[in-house]
Amino acid sequence: MKKLINSAETVVGDALRGLAAAHPSLRIDHERRLVLRAEPKDYGTVALVSGGGSGHEPLHSGYVGFGMLDAACPGEIFTSPAPQHWLDAAVAAERGAGVLLIVKNYAGDVMNAEIAAELAAERRLDLRTVIIADDVSLEPPVRRGTGTALLVHRLVGAAAEQGHDLDELHALAVRVAASGRSMGLALRPATVPAAGNPTFELGDDEIEWGVGIHGEPGRERQPLGTARELAGRLVDPILADGLPSGPAIVLLSGLGSTPLIELYVMHAEIVALLAHAGVTVARALVGNHVTALDMAGCSLTVLPVDDELLSLWDSPVETPVLRWGR
Amino acid sequence: MKKLINSAETVVGDALRGLAAAHPSLRIDHERRLVLRAEPKDYGTVALVSGGGSGHEPLHSGYVGFGMLDAACPGEIFTSPAPQHWLDAAVAAERGAGVLLIVKNYAGDVMNAEIAAELAAERRLDLRTVIIADDVSLEPPVRRGTGTALLVHRLVGAAAEQGHDLDELHALAVRVAASGRSMGLALRPATVPAAGNPTFELGDDEIEWGVGIHGEPGRERQPLGTARELAGRLVDPILADGLPSGPAIVLLSGLGSTPLIELYVMHAEIVALLAHAGVTVARALVGNHVTALDMAGCSLTVLPVDDELLSLWDSPVETPVLRWGR
Repeated sequence: MKKLINSAETVVGDALRGLAAAHPSLRIDHERRLVLRAEPKDYGTVALVSGGGSGHEPLHSGYVGFGMLDAACPGEIFTSPAPQHWLDAAVAAERGAGVLLIVKNYAGDVMNAEIAAELAAERRLDLRTVIIADDVSLEPPVRRGTGTALLVHRLVGAAAEQGHDLDELHALAVRVAASGRSMGLALRPATVPAAGNPTFELGDDEIEWGVGIHGEPGRERQPLGTARELAGRLVDPILADGLPSGPAIVLLSGLGSTPLIELYVMHAEIVALLAHAGVTVARALVGNHVTALDMAGCSLTVLPVDDELLSLWDSPVETPVLRWGR
Repeated sequence: MKKLINSAETVVGDALRGLAAAHPSLRIDHERRLVLRAEPKDYGTVALVSGGGSGHEPLHSGYVGFGMLDAACPGEIFTSPAPQHWLDAAVAAERGAGVLLIVKNYAGDVMNAEIAAELAAERRLDLRTVIIADDVSLEPPVRRGTGTALLVHRLVGAAAEQGHDLDELHALAVRVAASGRSMGLALRPATVPAAGNPTFELGDDEIEWGVGIHGEPGRERQPLGTARELAGRLVDPILADGLPSGPAIVLLSGLGSTPLIELYVMHAEIVALLAHAGVTVARALVGNHVTALDMAGCSLTVLPVDDELLSLWDSPVETPVLRWGR
């Protein structure tokens, strides 16, 4: 295992020190492992909290800031934050109008966030949860959560900044979560530092198709193909899942060790295939956004949008990764 | 070789199609392979042009926009643009006040840019060149150019937007180029698509120390160490090269396939080591900025700054990668 780390035990805390040094717009509570805005949002607005295992950087911490998240609680690598960790983040972020927890559909995250919600209820903290389950490589209800989480952070974060209440924001989050669809493929597996070995084996001419972002194997192993062929294998199951024609936001995320030039090659093919199906790319994010340590490959997320969602997308945002219009 | 491409022959053109689809703020001339601003800068201001081989994405195209570059001319992978390509970029970018060519110190780039400058002179195009040679792993005059190029794009791009003339901007670029210092290390080599094999071999417990960004081997092979030890091996030669104490801008770039969590771990160690030497990190960029295809590892660039340079750094910028204050 070759990694730029001090030890498997310290990697999450060490990275948080680097995050704090690089981004003065964030306030890091190192003891409780919370990533917060240095300038909290207006009092009387709903706070957005997201979390999950570490290893998906820049998710979640890179999306804390104006127009997106109020707090992130990074767990150990590929490991859910404990219930108290989720609760700590909610309490630290809360600004008098309730908290929306954004949780990806993994057993540990869902269970721990549920317990955190019970603990919050005991404290009379107004907290609602939305579950992201957008990975079309599996059938509901076991669909995993991936790229749509980022789109929920942005769209609901924008609406929260505009002063919508918790009921409205929860409804918006549920609507976006239900209409986003993702599909991923890997060229190389990830290596979790504490394990030291790749999470699965893959031949020199094979791709793992339908991977999640926790190093788990996918739905099927297939021969490597051209970018055009691989783009089809991402787009087709998303279309088959019922993606409507019309405008969409597209997120094409590298999984951690895929160079940007390859992502742009894939994006060109994906845009052409979607256009052929009547889906126009209204906005696009291409880069390493939702990753799985050093996995090579990419994940495609497509979200149908209307004018309301596009207006939310374009409204001001100021985080370490996304910044515009402010 | 496992890559998300259609073919080694088409990768640069295919990626430019994806770049165009993802970034409406760019105008791509596919026939001449130029990346330009969709909204050219004010007439009567100096244009900044940078280029070099492809494979370093987001360099150079991701830094075309307000407050940075006016044009980029991406060559084939790790291959200099031809003289006519450099000239085409200069002519397309020119806005009546001359052109500054920013060239990294690689034999092909320097030679082709020199010929382009001669061709420009024949056309009475007012063109000046600055050479970036910031890699302290080699002695002058063979020092290669790397991360300082990005800092020159930003700082001189900001000054160009403010209306400074070509003499002033050339002097600023020379000053920044002379004071930026870089050092890189690789955990894994890159694979150039047309070759299909890694550019060098590296053992399971070895790092290549002092690598450039074109897949060439470095200055020395050393055993892998902790992030703290590796950070020392990047910082020490930069200090030994005469880095003064005081405020600095730090660029810590992944080389293409290094996950962000590892870069943040390294950044924490680098900031501590620099502080110990009296160097305070006034601004930091951490991420995949100046890459070498799928090489794993990182490159550290440190630029001493004064209030004038910090003010230029903080002024508005709007490119696909860097965006703030506008």
